[in-house]
Amino acid sequence: MIHLSLIGIGTGNPDHITLAGVRALREAELILLPRKGEARSDLVDLRRLLCRSLLDEAAHSRVVEFDLPRRDGRDDYLGAVDDWHAAIAETWREQMTQRLPEGGRVAMLIWGDPSLYDSSLRIAARLKGAGPEQESGMALEVDVVPGITSLQVLTAEHCIPLNALAEPVQVTTGRRLRERGWPGDAASVAVMLDAGGAFQSLAPEGLHIWWGAYLGMDKQCLIAGPLAEVGPAIVERRAALRECHGWIMDVYLLARRPLLK
Amino acid sequence: MIHLSLIGIGTGNPDHITLAGVRALREAELILLPRKGEARSDLVDLRRLLCRSLLDEAAHSRVVEFDLPRRDGRDDYLGAVDDWHAAIAETWREQMTQRLPEGGRVAMLIWGDPSLYDSSLRIAARLKGAGPEQESGMALEVDVVPGITSLQVLTAEHCIPLNALAEPVQVTTGRRLRERGWPGDAASVAVMLDAGGAFQSLAPEGLHIWWGAYLGMDKQCLIAGPLAEVGPAIVERRAALRECHGWIMDVYLLARRPLLK
Repeated sequence: MIHLSLIGIGTGNPDHITLAGVRALREAELILLPRKGEARSDLVDLRRLLCRSLLDEAAHSRVVEFDLPRRDGRDDYLGAVDDWHAAIAETWREQMTQRLPEGGRVAMLIWGDPSLYDSSLRIAARLKGAGPEQESGMALEVDVVPGITSLQVLTAEHCIPLNALAEPVQVTTGRRLRERGWPGDAASVAVMLDAGGAFQSLAPEGLHIWWGAYLGMDKQCLIAGPLAEVGPAIVERRAALRECHGWIMDVYLLARRPLLK
Repeated sequence: MIHLSLIGIGTGNPDHITLAGVRALREAELILLPRKGEARSDLVDLRRLLCRSLLDEAAHSRVVEFDLPRRDGRDDYLGAVDDWHAAIAETWREQMTQRLPEGGRVAMLIWGDPSLYDSSLRIAARLKGAGPEQESGMALEVDVVPGITSLQVLTAEHCIPLNALAEPVQVTTGRRLRERGWPGDAASVAVMLDAGGAFQSLAPEGLHIWWGAYLGMDKQCLIAGPLAEVGPAIVERRAALRECHGWIMDVYLLARRPLLK
């Protein structure tokens, strides 16, 4: 039996890990650090830093890095994601069964929180045989240690709430915002996984935006203001930062109503 | 100048505080613990426990408890909340200016995260004079240390994500769910602040629910299943738990689509 802990680690500030996360990390025999390719090596660096700073000499954890398969860039997005998850699951299985043939405790450090636009739980479910293709299951027990999401760092850094008073908030993707526009029922909308400037598909009148990139990291960048005024500046800044650092991760909150009243 | 840190502390498990939260707590000269009345003393107990366990003898923090004003139960909900926030702001101002007449660092421990259905940021904005009634502002600087929300503990304990693959999620209140029904654009809906069983206003066919009460605490209770099957059991269990403990806080996630595929 493999026991897998998916530990949310926040988004760049090593101090955003919780005491429960520190404990789960220290209790693991094997810590798997997936590499996603050179450009985003900052994201692996944070995980390495957490392991170095939190695992003392008494810790019995072995830290192993491995390369993740890449996602197919084809047009059929959900199909490409499905194939990609299957390939990642196979990589996880190999790493876990080869390195812990007798079973044991494995930890993976999940950017943000495993509940929000993260596929670790789906990949683990595939390994257990509950996935869409019913792969032959492995003896795997999963637990989740929650972590701070980029949305929480965004709102903390801008000193704003996510929701207007007593109002709902929609969390969505850049893709969906482009395709469907403003979700009818929400007074505020948080947008993740935007490949860039999906807010430009909205009529900006009356909208306010709070944007953040590289949240929690030294190179964090924040912009806020009326969308009509700051939208173009965000698009420009995002392109420049991406050029400069080789990658970018950003999220933003849009609101039709004041959030602090 | 008063520097106020709003520290998210999670929802009942003292290990859900982050390393940044621990540091901010230790750096405060004054820690204000608001009391909301006897019934919910568990919620103050967690804060007391965190202060006791995280502040060592070297810490120079003074921990002060004070009673919050109560919210008027009148029908005009937003009006009652507005008055209540004004009264709370006045209490905060008194506590801070009387106890730190020369200024200094104050911390408040916020259940969950200050960004989600919490009014601390709005109350602080009133004190700074940015509130709806433009009270004469005080010299106040605010920062936020993000904390784990009850929704994150809910999904972690049920081992599920908040969103279906590439789909949006709506975070809303029980009141809004009753009034407006299922929000059109969302594949999953997280419900907070439900005074009880707002999900009963939905046609349960095809819906799945993951429910949790007292999340993170020893008395945590989880129920999940098709809404048509487990909905009545949740209503019954909730009433019994509330009777038994004198108070209840619960949240739930509803989904129309499988979350793990």
